[in-house]
Amino acid sequence: MAIGIVSYSHTNFGVLKEDIPELVKGVVEGAISKVDKGIDPKEIDLIVTSCVDNQFSNQHQTGTLAWRYLKNPDAKGFKVEAACASGSLALFVAKEMVRAGFIKNAMIVGFEKMSNIPTDKVTSILIRGGSPEERMIGITQPAAYGFMAKLYMEKYGATEDDYALVAVKNHDNAMRNPWAQFHKKITIEDVKGSKMIASPIRLLHCSPITDGAAAIILSGEPKRYTDTPVYIKSMAVAHDTLGVFERADPTFLSASKKAADEAYMKAGLKPSQIQFAEVHDAFAPAEIQLYDALGFSGKGEGYRLIRDNATAFSGSRPVNVSGGLKAKGHPIGATGVGMMIETFLQLRGEAGERQLPSPEIGLIENHGGTGAVAAVTILGR
Amino acid sequence: MAIGIVSYSHTNFGVLKEDIPELVKGVVEGAISKVDKGIDPKEIDLIVTSCVDNQFSNQHQTGTLAWRYLKNPDAKGFKVEAACASGSLALFVAKEMVRAGFIKNAMIVGFEKMSNIPTDKVTSILIRGGSPEERMIGITQPAAYGFMAKLYMEKYGATEDDYALVAVKNHDNAMRNPWAQFHKKITIEDVKGSKMIASPIRLLHCSPITDGAAAIILSGEPKRYTDTPVYIKSMAVAHDTLGVFERADPTFLSASKKAADEAYMKAGLKPSQIQFAEVHDAFAPAEIQLYDALGFSGKGEGYRLIRDNATAFSGSRPVNVSGGLKAKGHPIGATGVGMMIETFLQLRGEAGERQLPSPEIGLIENHGGTGAVAAVTILGR
Repeated sequence: MAIGIVSYSHTNFGVLKEDIPELVKGVVEGAISKVDKGIDPKEIDLIVTSCVDNQFSNQHQTGTLAWRYLKNPDAKGFKVEAACASGSLALFVAKEMVRAGFIKNAMIVGFEKMSNIPTDKVTSILIRGGSPEERMIGITQPAAYGFMAKLYMEKYGATEDDYALVAVKNHDNAMRNPWAQFHKKITIEDVKGSKMIASPIRLLHCSPITDGAAAIILSGEPKRYTDTPVYIKSMAVAHDTLGVFERADPTFLSASKKAADEAYMKAGLKPSQIQFAEVHDAFAPAEIQLYDALGFSGKGEGYRLIRDNATAFSGSRPVNVSGGLKAKGHPIGATGVGMMIETFLQLRGEAGERQLPSPEIGLIENHGGTGAVAAVTILGR
Repeated sequence: MAIGIVSYSHTNFGVLKEDIPELVKGVVEGAISKVDKGIDPKEIDLIVTSCVDNQFSNQHQTGTLAWRYLKNPDAKGFKVEAACASGSLALFVAKEMVRAGFIKNAMIVGFEKMSNIPTDKVTSILIRGGSPEERMIGITQPAAYGFMAKLYMEKYGATEDDYALVAVKNHDNAMRNPWAQFHKKITIEDVKGSKMIASPIRLLHCSPITDGAAAIILSGEPKRYTDTPVYIKSMAVAHDTLGVFERADPTFLSASKKAADEAYMKAGLKPSQIQFAEVHDAFAPAEIQLYDALGFSGKGEGYRLIRDNATAFSGSRPVNVSGGLKAKGHPIGATGVGMMIETFLQLRGEAGERQLPSPEIGLIENHGGTGAVAAVTILGR
């Protein structure tokens, strides 16, 4: 069965004035209204939400919250959670149910409202993305990513400039994305002069605290709803140890590699055939680790791609043309859904100023915590 | 496809000394070890967790947490959340994936660790089960249930004694359940003399704050793993308004009725054919409302069943022989899974002192918030 994305809705990412019910209502109704050939809400049987912490959402049944705006009393709704990969896992569940044939069309609604919570408290909430053992001794997400980034430098010769270049590139890309949280070019010097958070990670390597929402509609009969659906060529999910310190090689994101390998195999594609990608740069050095894991570079060679501008907007394989989590923003539950939408728009030729020249195949890598859960999705026209 | 439950594991419910990793490890390994004909963890492709608030779990990827104890590197894990109905929704998702044939066997792991949080804070966490609008004006779960119970009394003539009898019955049942939080008989006078919480709801009408975990293994080929599986005859999920105050008839749990009607229809059964049931008595008066919603009584006549002892252990259709949420306990994410296990054991004739005489069909009603999401499952031999 060819399952396709037939519609979407996407708020600005940033510090938003809307509360969660308004954000959710907006994207649920927006996705319905954007279906090219129209859709009756009664044709949408399932609504899967993605959001991460109940201290952000203040809600235990976001599935019902989204359901109330769908206007199909017979639809079923629930939330799927898998840390920062929640958006992809929600898509995975919805896609499997559509593939099974029990559900004709499903909506995935990702959202997060993080700006209401003081910044220091956000870090103590996001530490829940890691392992219980690391949390108990206070290893935050930036600390764990910093540890990985430092080891990667020592092992392979990546430099602070390489890591800074990822942030520079993604801020540059975000200039072309009206939804992005930051519209501000930065330089290598800006990054290297920014506040040290967890060496070698500095403030300008970190994705920001973001509000936002995004929704997509998935269909088992996509041509019924649009002449230009974007198909899910393949999707895979894999896991690694919850803790970074339990890993044989903490420089390597092995769940992302495992998911990518399975996705390539299922789609019958090689890494070289991926024309562009959205990847999980919650901290800029991770983007370089992901070039390795996704097979875009040899192991330990990812930093060469950023040095050579290979992943820049005008490079041979652009990565994070949206601006990435770094500069587009990272409203956790919405992030994965937003990555799908970026890829959808690029493949449809509807990405405006940041449109790539007619790509046919794009990849999304979305992971949770320090890579303990990873989802890789390949979309195509 | 006949999908069956082939194994289970269940901790005591109560105030437990174990932390979440220990609880989860215990039930994951326990369910594997209890498969009659044995199972290789590598045969379990999916692990779906159910737990409710990240302030209880301190974890954003409980799917990966459970995965690490499963010992199948290729399994996929994620969490499903739908307030107090999370356990049933997790089963719903796993069951649909098994039915689709992509997953051969799945484990559902429900847990909650609530006793670490001060009681007053628990109430402010559980208010997230209701609507955003009711939460904003401070309508807690007991307040909303109290409102429903009061209206039901005024409309139909139920009395405080009827509501007290539900708690008395469920405490009596819990005496026979070694896993139950309370092993203490209570009287109508005890209930009516207990602290007023939200009129007419008193302390002894309320389910307690509970720690606990429970797991089941679901199989698409149940006979391969046991000669005595328990089959999912049918399962249905429905929704109602998030807020009680938005409902045309706040005395009626219409999502529970809708789910029950669909479950009866799919199973080809009438309410009169249900021999016993586990229902969501988070607050005792709700059990009477549920007799109405499930068709065990005419609308507004549920209180007669409790007066007549029809739902007592020795009655014509026992309800909550486990002790119910009221006396067995209510570790939110584990509750629905625990209800499945109670029904599984009764149908297998393994319920020990509380065994009913050879039942063949049992029903589980598990709802979230004030009934805005409801799941009804019918299990049979």
